[in-house]
Amino acid sequence: MGHNVAQKLIAAHLVAGDMTAGEEIALRIDQTLTQDATGTLVMLELEALDLDRARTEVSVQYVDHNLLQTDNKNAEDHAFLRSACHRFGLWYSKPGNGVSHPTHMQRFGVPGKTLVGSDSHTPAAGSLGMLAIGVGGIEVAMAIAGEPMYLRMPEIWGVRLTGDLPPWVSAKDVILEMLRRHGVKGGVNRILEYHGPGLAHLSAMDRHVIANMGAELGATTTVFPSDDRVREFMRAERREHDFVELLADADAAYDVTEEIDLSALEPLIALPGSPGNVVAVREVAGRPVDQVVVGSSANPGLRDFAIVAAIVSGRQAHPRVSLDINPSSRQILQDLTKMGDTFTLVSAGARLHQSGCMGCIGMGQAPAGGGNSLRTVPRNFPGRSGTLDDAVFLCSPETAAAAALTGQITDPRDLPHLLGIDCPHVELPAESSVNTAMLEPPPAAHADRAALVKGANISSLPDFPPLADRLEAPVALKVGDDVSTDEILPAGARVLPYRSNIPKLAEFTFAQIDEGYVGRARACHGSGHVVVGGANYGQGSSREHAAIAPRHLGLRVVLAVSFARIHWQNLANFGVLALEFADPGDYRRVRQGDVLVMDGLRHAIGSSETGITVRNTTRDQLYSTRHRLSARQIEMLLAGGLIPWLRGR
Amino acid sequence: MGHNVAQKLIAAHLVAGDMTAGEEIALRIDQTLTQDATGTLVMLELEALDLDRARTEVSVQYVDHNLLQTDNKNAEDHAFLRSACHRFGLWYSKPGNGVSHPTHMQRFGVPGKTLVGSDSHTPAAGSLGMLAIGVGGIEVAMAIAGEPMYLRMPEIWGVRLTGDLPPWVSAKDVILEMLRRHGVKGGVNRILEYHGPGLAHLSAMDRHVIANMGAELGATTTVFPSDDRVREFMRAERREHDFVELLADADAAYDVTEEIDLSALEPLIALPGSPGNVVAVREVAGRPVDQVVVGSSANPGLRDFAIVAAIVSGRQAHPRVSLDINPSSRQILQDLTKMGDTFTLVSAGARLHQSGCMGCIGMGQAPAGGGNSLRTVPRNFPGRSGTLDDAVFLCSPETAAAAALTGQITDPRDLPHLLGIDCPHVELPAESSVNTAMLEPPPAAHADRAALVKGANISSLPDFPPLADRLEAPVALKVGDDVSTDEILPAGARVLPYRSNIPKLAEFTFAQIDEGYVGRARACHGSGHVVVGGANYGQGSSREHAAIAPRHLGLRVVLAVSFARIHWQNLANFGVLALEFADPGDYRRVRQGDVLVMDGLRHAIGSSETGITVRNTTRDQLYSTRHRLSARQIEMLLAGGLIPWLRGR
Repeated sequence: MGHNVAQKLIAAHLVAGDMTAGEEIALRIDQTLTQDATGTLVMLELEALDLDRARTEVSVQYVDHNLLQTDNKNAEDHAFLRSACHRFGLWYSKPGNGVSHPTHMQRFGVPGKTLVGSDSHTPAAGSLGMLAIGVGGIEVAMAIAGEPMYLRMPEIWGVRLTGDLPPWVSAKDVILEMLRRHGVKGGVNRILEYHGPGLAHLSAMDRHVIANMGAELGATTTVFPSDDRVREFMRAERREHDFVELLADADAAYDVTEEIDLSALEPLIALPGSPGNVVAVREVAGRPVDQVVVGSSANPGLRDFAIVAAIVSGRQAHPRVSLDINPSSRQILQDLTKMGDTFTLVSAGARLHQSGCMGCIGMGQAPAGGGNSLRTVPRNFPGRSGTLDDAVFLCSPETAAAAALTGQITDPRDLPHLLGIDCPHVELPAESSVNTAMLEPPPAAHADRAALVKGANISSLPDFPPLADRLEAPVALKVGDDVSTDEILPAGARVLPYRSNIPKLAEFTFAQIDEGYVGRARACHGSGHVVVGGANYGQGSSREHAAIAPRHLGLRVVLAVSFARIHWQNLANFGVLALEFADPGDYRRVRQGDVLVMDGLRHAIGSSETGITVRNTTRDQLYSTRHRLSARQIEMLLAGGLIPWLRGR
Repeated sequence: MGHNVAQKLIAAHLVAGDMTAGEEIALRIDQTLTQDATGTLVMLELEALDLDRARTEVSVQYVDHNLLQTDNKNAEDHAFLRSACHRFGLWYSKPGNGVSHPTHMQRFGVPGKTLVGSDSHTPAAGSLGMLAIGVGGIEVAMAIAGEPMYLRMPEIWGVRLTGDLPPWVSAKDVILEMLRRHGVKGGVNRILEYHGPGLAHLSAMDRHVIANMGAELGATTTVFPSDDRVREFMRAERREHDFVELLADADAAYDVTEEIDLSALEPLIALPGSPGNVVAVREVAGRPVDQVVVGSSANPGLRDFAIVAAIVSGRQAHPRVSLDINPSSRQILQDLTKMGDTFTLVSAGARLHQSGCMGCIGMGQAPAGGGNSLRTVPRNFPGRSGTLDDAVFLCSPETAAAAALTGQITDPRDLPHLLGIDCPHVELPAESSVNTAMLEPPPAAHADRAALVKGANISSLPDFPPLADRLEAPVALKVGDDVSTDEILPAGARVLPYRSNIPKLAEFTFAQIDEGYVGRARACHGSGHVVVGGANYGQGSSREHAAIAPRHLGLRVVLAVSFARIHWQNLANFGVLALEFADPGDYRRVRQGDVLVMDGLRHAIGSSETGITVRNTTRDQLYSTRHRLSARQIEMLLAGGLIPWLRGR
């Protein structure tokens, strides 16, 4: 039987294991991507590993998150990252050059290659026929050091696209439809692979939109074939020489199958709270809107801004609406400016912001409490915007532009009769205005070792002890289903600047859910503590800080109904035991404050995949639990995590 | 004898007093300007006064300071300000429309009119032959309510300009030359009036640069005549109908005289710490530069950005340098874009930021600690950038652009031989791309009263009691000369969002100078406390919060060698007695922690301008002091400040 694209990519990079869903496999990694909010830690890890020079084909350090610079910390992090690129032989993408995902796709993406990135939206590069996976920073550090990446072989979920998108409907509505159908857990342990005749109508950048937000389905990654539309993209980026065709075999099969008729789609919108709360725009039309934000890695393409410009051209944003335009890269801002769209947008009342992640990660442009904010970004977890009681909706650029003009949620298909606007056709330039001057190449291979420039806010990683054989520790926190890493460790302007300072950062752990957690965790620092979670614990962003910070506060075990993949890996990497209830009903029996006991843990964890019994001495109950750790991960966990384990080798 | 321009402006608006230097006069106010950081308080004051509708010809509320929106507070302040404009009949300038000073000049400036603004750079409008004065917010509230503005008649300081500026030297170097000659106290109690043949070579926007930074000399304001260059400006702004010629009489005289030969000037730069630390650029050339910031009300004109674009055109910013471009208004960004300069700047590696005050007021783009940052902004008081150990230099756009390319402080006159760049000639469009859609006009005069929209962070003004007859209070803080309001109450991203929340804001009082102050002040809340200052106490920004916040903590008296004008007025407005040492030598005798006693204060303050004796019971010393309060101010102070006094009327 033939192979699908995902299988071809995996087979070409397989260094251990076999391609059976659920088995651990190891993959050779060609490229890595780090951004500044996670990258400072990766660089400190490379320092701890005493790496001589990156062993990947391409490794790029982007600066796109911490750009507000409200004090010295951001600028000092940038200087540190630049020095680390000189030290370890990485590319450095200067602040202002753009968001990692579209920039990487434009400048470094090569069909057929593997990419890992310390950012959960790394799968966006799947739009070019790459196998691109978001992981914790430590795993990127390992990849940079030439180690393979380990993961459990996912199921391959084939999504067949037919038909063409109707007017006013675009790629964002395709991924919102997937989220409407399957919710934020629908893609867990799966690779999404899009195929079928509908693909011909989706440009590489349209596919980026869909692959990027595959992360919101919880998918391991998303892949598209590398076909003529990809060749067209590579040509526009003046890199046709890097194009490689990569198609599924004619008789390729998929573990799971799905079909979307593009012509049947309508404008969709995710209601506040979760990217999974998707409804038709027309169902919520008429609600007042205070803010519209266009940008981020979820709608990063020139087309996504140009369509907004075409819709608002010659008109004005509603007086109540702040229309915030956040170009995703310098290149896109250059092209927009060349096309006249920068002028059009600014004339329509847009606030034009520097290229970067901005409000998508809570770095500025937070809305008023309760004020509806429509955004083309990928996520709307509560508080992620920076405003605790925010009301962020996720939608397409078309839906965003319509709201900017009318001041209320508006189905863009109503624009013709409401405002006499016909659905615009956007003509993109055949060639992008490529400009690589803000990408500093790695120094020559035999250059002298550069020194690391460490500002006052950059502190070494704390040490973590090996796993104890007996644990008697209270449940310091019990949370519900779908807790995201945004809730475990918030992003935003108050917290992000401390990403390279774990002791300070830890003070914000779970602050959005329960301000008492940090105090309780510290009170039982001697014994350590347990967190109890529901289903899909740790969904969302890949930040390993969500494992390190509570670990620093004494977290030893998370006992949950189920885990999101990246966070589960991060817990193991930093020596926290992730246990699943064998009987999900036990979740309801344990309460916050209960004391749990685990005996003979070091033996039990190594002897079998099941059979770790947790004793609740407060309620005199027993829970059967299991871990899903591989032999390699067990070894690591016994040592206290990946870093002590590597040091021990 | 004929009148100079300043005298003509004052005479035309005089409602009380006579024009003898030092005497209190009262002026009719035609226009007001507020920005968001001070404006929220002004609107609360209008609410306290129960104003029906603004009684000025034009009152405009700008939103230009708090644009970062890292949480709900900024956006809620914007909504409050917009509702207050609807409520009181003011113009509302939306976030993104631009910095108040250039925007006001372009859209509302009218030669011959008076303007007060709750921003210390309000004098920039003197560039159009206006009498424009920066005052505390409460005085703007009074002006909006139709009350006259009171001040002591300043001396008029005539500065005669001859010659023309050499290549690579521009208006910023003229005002830096004044600061080099006279320092930050040189203009206290004076109005600067520029005249002479050199004026013909300075456009209205060049004059804006000079008038704006007259604030840094401590001047009451700066005026220029309204001549053909002003007519030219008004024509480009499509408002020639608002042009009025206003020239000094041929036989006009000045209280103080000065001359600058423009052709003898060279590129100048203010070293970190104070706008008064001016040296020639060549004296510090070669020092490494990490950041270059172009923007702010000090160099707000199209020319100031276009010259930078012309210099960096086709080149790249140095890899170490972050080149931050901060367009001062939407209009200027539109024109820059039309001219092709936005493309040029972005192509050269610039980070393009939203229109507003940004780094000038510490709202973003703070440099790394100790890293040299060259900026075209007006102020570099320590920490104002947001970085405590900052190193901010003030310079012209030409000097800034040179450093952006070379990565070190560079005399722009060296660019021809260093990089083969000839001094560019910038051709500006004959007409600006005027666009008023982000200026919301006041509602019709007889519209229904709009309701104020108050977010969670907006709290009422605290009440202040009348002046006690006997004061026995410790010196909670003793500071040196030239303490700025930035040091009394910092701006920046951490503090500015609390500008409408005095109890919270007060926690930051004097934080940059002495973190123990707030605790000591609170410890003696019952008795109140005294602050002892050196010369020019309270220089810099007009923020009345620097009076209100320590007053809220119990400040009753500031005893100083001398005071900066605006802060001195703010102290009186909020019921704090400002006393000057009769013998400046006594400053050295009093120490922090000493207990000072003043008896029979209510009688003493009213009976004479001199003769308030302060007893230092700790050291058994007596100090003669004097206040400079007018009869009106004494009445106000006895009542506890302007608001209780008005309430009593």
